[in-house]
Amino acid sequence: MIVVMRNGATLEQIEHVIERLRESGYREQVSTGEERTVIGVIGSGIAPDLGEKLEMLPGVESTHRISKPYKLASRDFKPVNTVVQIGDLAIGSDEFVVMAGPCSVESREQVLQTARAAKAAGARVLRGGAYKPRTSPYSFQGLGEEGLQYLADAREKTGLPIITEVLDTADVALVAQYTDILQLGTRNMQNFALLRAMGQVNKPVMLKRGMSATIEEWLMAAEYILHAGNSQVILCERGIRTFETAARNTLDLSAIPIVKRLSHLPVVADPSHGTGKWYLVPPMAMAAAAVGADGLLIEVHPDPDAALSDGPQSLNLDNFAAMMSDLRRVTDAVGRSLGQLASASGGGR
Amino acid sequence: MIVVMRNGATLEQIEHVIERLRESGYREQVSTGEERTVIGVIGSGIAPDLGEKLEMLPGVESTHRISKPYKLASRDFKPVNTVVQIGDLAIGSDEFVVMAGPCSVESREQVLQTARAAKAAGARVLRGGAYKPRTSPYSFQGLGEEGLQYLADAREKTGLPIITEVLDTADVALVAQYTDILQLGTRNMQNFALLRAMGQVNKPVMLKRGMSATIEEWLMAAEYILHAGNSQVILCERGIRTFETAARNTLDLSAIPIVKRLSHLPVVADPSHGTGKWYLVPPMAMAAAAVGADGLLIEVHPDPDAALSDGPQSLNLDNFAAMMSDLRRVTDAVGRSLGQLASASGGGR
Amino acid sequence: MIVVMRNGATLEQIEHVIERLRESGYREQVSTGEERTVIGVIGSGIAPDLGEKLEMLPGVESTHRISKPYKLASRDFKPVNTVVQIGDLAIGSDEFVVMAGPCSVESREQVLQTARAAKAAGARVLRGGAYKPRTSPYSFQGLGEEGLQYLADAREKTGLPIITEVLDTADVALVAQYTDILQLGTRNMQNFALLRAMGQVNKPVMLKRGMSATIEEWLMAAEYILHAGNSQVILCERGIRTFETAARNTLDLSAIPIVKRLSHLPVVADPSHGTGKWYLVPPMAMAAAAVGADGLLIEVHPDPDAALSDGPQSLNLDNFAAMMSDLRRVTDAVGRSLGQLASASGGGR
Amino acid sequence: MIVVMRNGATLEQIEHVIERLRESGYREQVSTGEERTVIGVIGSGIAPDLGEKLEMLPGVESTHRISKPYKLASRDFKPVNTVVQIGDLAIGSDEFVVMAGPCSVESREQVLQTARAAKAAGARVLRGGAYKPRTSPYSFQGLGEEGLQYLADAREKTGLPIITEVLDTADVALVAQYTDILQLGTRNMQNFALLRAMGQVNKPVMLKRGMSATIEEWLMAAEYILHAGNSQVILCERGIRTFETAARNTLDLSAIPIVKRLSHLPVVADPSHGTGKWYLVPPMAMAAAAVGADGLLIEVHPDPDAALSDGPQSLNLDNFAAMMSDLRRVTDAVGRSLGQLASASGGGR
Repeated sequence: MIVVMRNGATLEQIEHVIERLRESGYREQVSTGEERTVIGVIGSGIAPDLGEKLEMLPGVESTHRISKPYKLASRDFKPVNTVVQIGDLAIGSDEFVVMAGPCSVESREQVLQTARAAKAAGARVLRGGAYKPRTSPYSFQGLGEEGLQYLADAREKTGLPIITEVLDTADVALVAQYTDILQLGTRNMQNFALLRAMGQVNKPVMLKRGMSATIEEWLMAAEYILHAGNSQVILCERGIRTFETAARNTLDLSAIPIVKRLSHLPVVADPSHGTGKWYLVPPMAMAAAAVGADGLLIEVHPDPDAALSDGPQSLNLDNFAAMMSDLRRVTDAVGRSLGQLASASGGGR
Repeated sequence: MIVVMRNGATLEQIEHVIERLRESGYREQVSTGEERTVIGVIGSGIAPDLGEKLEMLPGVESTHRISKPYKLASRDFKPVNTVVQIGDLAIGSDEFVVMAGPCSVESREQVLQTARAAKAAGARVLRGGAYKPRTSPYSFQGLGEEGLQYLADAREKTGLPIITEVLDTADVALVAQYTDILQLGTRNMQNFALLRAMGQVNKPVMLKRGMSATIEEWLMAAEYILHAGNSQVILCERGIRTFETAARNTLDLSAIPIVKRLSHLPVVADPSHGTGKWYLVPPMAMAAAAVGADGLLIEVHPDPDAALSDGPQSLNLDNFAAMMSDLRRVTDAVGRSLGQLASASGGGR
Repeated sequence: MIVVMRNGATLEQIEHVIERLRESGYREQVSTGEERTVIGVIGSGIAPDLGEKLEMLPGVESTHRISKPYKLASRDFKPVNTVVQIGDLAIGSDEFVVMAGPCSVESREQVLQTARAAKAAGARVLRGGAYKPRTSPYSFQGLGEEGLQYLADAREKTGLPIITEVLDTADVALVAQYTDILQLGTRNMQNFALLRAMGQVNKPVMLKRGMSATIEEWLMAAEYILHAGNSQVILCERGIRTFETAARNTLDLSAIPIVKRLSHLPVVADPSHGTGKWYLVPPMAMAAAAVGADGLLIEVHPDPDAALSDGPQSLNLDNFAAMMSDLRRVTDAVGRSLGQLASASGGGR
Repeated sequence: MIVVMRNGATLEQIEHVIERLRESGYREQVSTGEERTVIGVIGSGIAPDLGEKLEMLPGVESTHRISKPYKLASRDFKPVNTVVQIGDLAIGSDEFVVMAGPCSVESREQVLQTARAAKAAGARVLRGGAYKPRTSPYSFQGLGEEGLQYLADAREKTGLPIITEVLDTADVALVAQYTDILQLGTRNMQNFALLRAMGQVNKPVMLKRGMSATIEEWLMAAEYILHAGNSQVILCERGIRTFETAARNTLDLSAIPIVKRLSHLPVVADPSHGTGKWYLVPPMAMAAAAVGADGLLIEVHPDPDAALSDGPQSLNLDNFAAMMSDLRRVTDAVGRSLGQLASASGGGR
């Protein structure tokens, strides 16, 4: 951190800053110029709010952070890509991993039918919500543990690993028993109790970006999980809130190469929530592949207009299969592998 | 809700829409015009996502919601203002209630000193955080139950009721034992598990607006609490996230008269978090009083530049007293009462 | 400006930076620390994009601007408040100046009726648009010079100075002939040709904030006018674009104390455009007075529901008079003068 | 448009609405339901602000627009894609058209060198700014007509058509003499005088999206040009302003399939301004091709770190050539043609 003193700051003021730095365990490097004095702060682990505090001291003009506030999540700390392994699946490798399934788990049959069709089209992970964060208390809130059982049943029958969301610290242990990947949703990105709980689970966690979180805040949320002991974090860009209302959110695809530069963690895109409209999902999915994402999260439903939640953004089975076929040409073009097509009947164990 | 069919929609398509409406328990009112057919949806409790679903049906051009998605929180439902009573304090009445105290509880002495000074200057409620939501896992996370005890101790000595934040469903019971008002913070506004838990507590809840929540989403969050059985909800505008970075957030004062029109719930403003800079707190506090807020939440610290969190936005004791004196002229001008000045020594029980 | 070199930057890289600085006419002050080297850039008039350019050089970690990119608009340059004088009116002084009138000039009678009523209620300047920026080519575009004549006629009859908008460099000379204050609208805040033209006019200019302009960009736009030779600039906060749609824009009242701190220029608020709803205008007008604005711009129309533009945000004559009466209590509370009430018949010259 | 009357609106209020509609030249279609009355407004060319006006009438609950406020720009009006032809170049066809060149024209040699290299790598149009919109009055403002001559000279020598920006109505005739495509920049998207002037030019116009313009406002701006008589409009998405600061803007790629659905006009993307960082340009360029854009606008400079403007977002000649090679695989994957590679020496006429 650099502390810039005002033009005309007194020696006393400069010394007061130095004193405060030393009290907090830092050392200083003072550079006295013609116009003003600049103080470099030396020490490992600059507190995230040190700058704000120093700016309150008399004579201080401004402070400038040089290092990032996150450490474990940064590429400086770990230059090589993290690859999250789930069975034979490697997220963050050359594989381009598509996770597909219904927004909400509604019935055993619905999940199984979707899982089979998704797998046949090339999906590698089955997604589905058993605990649903809904804006309205009057909306369907999910089947709870019953939904988890349907997901586990579909995994049994298709071999697809599953990903599902957890909403409350009280449910973490139960959800972790069933799922292969725990999903932490956009509205909980700064639910710090839940982030800490995720750090103590021995399963991969997919951390969705908060709908109005900066990339730095997103990586700080990942830092909570990493710091609490879980290194298997997958990031998911799912659209940010902007002034534009033509789509539900603005899927921020530039976040993907930015995150890849700043962090070693894998990052996937969710064009279903990111746009809110099924007809925007295929073009944005292809764009996400072209921009360098490690995979996709896609809502698929056998009968979207009867879905209990988020039907408007779900692809039906045919549209999903068509999208996967187009997508394969793009993943080939950027040197990523979408995997072999499974036969619809295969995969049972 | 109004369903507008496309110009040229077939009779079959119109009948399909009607069929779906009836299946879902609604009745229809069809109006056939020269250019297009419009279908009115009749029934109590239009589901929040009905419009999105109907828009997926063939032949549907658009849907238009007429009624609000919240009910218990709406002024239509309850035309008279809700007044939240805490002892002799009435939030939402003609009183203008200032809640003041440190961002974080740091020590018994710090809390008590602040409480006494705040009370002397006219504050009616003591605020202070024992569980702190911090962007970084490396920042001070609060004293936990020890902090609650210091707050309770200061209440004992000054007579000021207290308000403090709860972060996790696991802590609700404990925090509710100590506090007079439970605070639900901006990052948890859509933590639906926590909202439901708040609905089961027999204490007032202050619900902060999510930093990127629309007013409608904020009222829907209040609806969760009301629907779960707790009618003592106080809203708090605390700044929204915009493109402007000169202040930490943009305190949206227009939200206050808008909420007053839409809802019967009391609403206060938090200019400390809303601006992030102590020198903006007094002018924005006065503006909040002028615009019709029912009170304020203000960070006050005996020594802001040593504060363990959010020092830069805290007023010191002298600045707080000066602000209260200016504020009184504005509350008088708009016909609200800031209450009698207590003597610093008074109020012990 | 401070240039921070990467940890491990080579001597050659450091020298390359210094060379580039000298080529561009700056001097350097190098500070070599244990971990990294920091270079201070010395020289008057740091180019606004110098930082971006230096960040492209090899070995550079980051750059940090210390001085503001604007000069003439800054309070550092001119510590005392600028007061814009129009006849006996002093904008930026202790007077709180209300400018009122219709969005669009529609007829001689409409303008005159509004001007008389506005003056009677305490307005000091008559506003009205003759050239209208309209989102749609199918909307009423203003009466042009005919409208300017009606405004001038109303000034003749009431003594109120007038303010009106100019949209194109081609119209500046004509508009300046008629008006007392030239208004530059939100959509033209970065119309640099028009800004430069405003700098060459010998009349005060009211510069509205762009609806998505940062405060810094707004002051840079003022700098264009000041730099081109016109020092009589009044700033006007008129609402910014955010994700919230309950009001047309989010009136950013915190911008007012921020601008007052950064700049010596007077600043007024426009709650009519800032909210887009007439019933939000009085509370936001009072809040603007409480927060420290130097005045207001208010839309008033004798028959808002027949207005050719922006009726929904216009007060009728009775509502305006009622608002002025409430406002006077707030301006008194903050030590500003709303001026003496004129009699409705008075003021002719 | 649908007008929804309040539950309990009187017959008189309903008749008043009908009367106002008829006065304004519309007819009505009244539908009286059990709960409320709904009035359909019939007539061609519903005024953009009719809804706002009707909402002011007593007894009106809300109004709902059914048709789009733009007409000539809509796909309803013209279902087939517009193809803008410039010599043998067809923008909006199966060709994927890359326009490349420096942000600012700096010298004859710089433009020519860039043009030759860009052409060799596959660019089909040469871009370059002679009139520069700069945030600061102290920044380089462009070479003016001298710059136009250098561009024309490069066209002469390479055969590449040129695109350049115009900032003021006063310059339109001059710029149109030199250029093949006129560019209207983001800050002027709602400069209505300039839009009208663009409508009277017999050259294609590239209309950049305003950095905080909704898609609807963008199409309304296009409507101004179309309505004034020029049907050769190309849209350009160039990034919107959001809360995220990691990139300069957020390139909104979802806008491209949305615009394609709403309008028949071709649309290209500008990842250079849209991200502000050269290393984000290639991935976002590929994403734009994958999402369905008709082309790209790319900043290329022989020596970006010496550029007089926007160096940080410019590719150097080698990076541009490498990007084009990667891009070709993506355009092939989505069935678009990037054109034949020219030899560096060819193309003179």
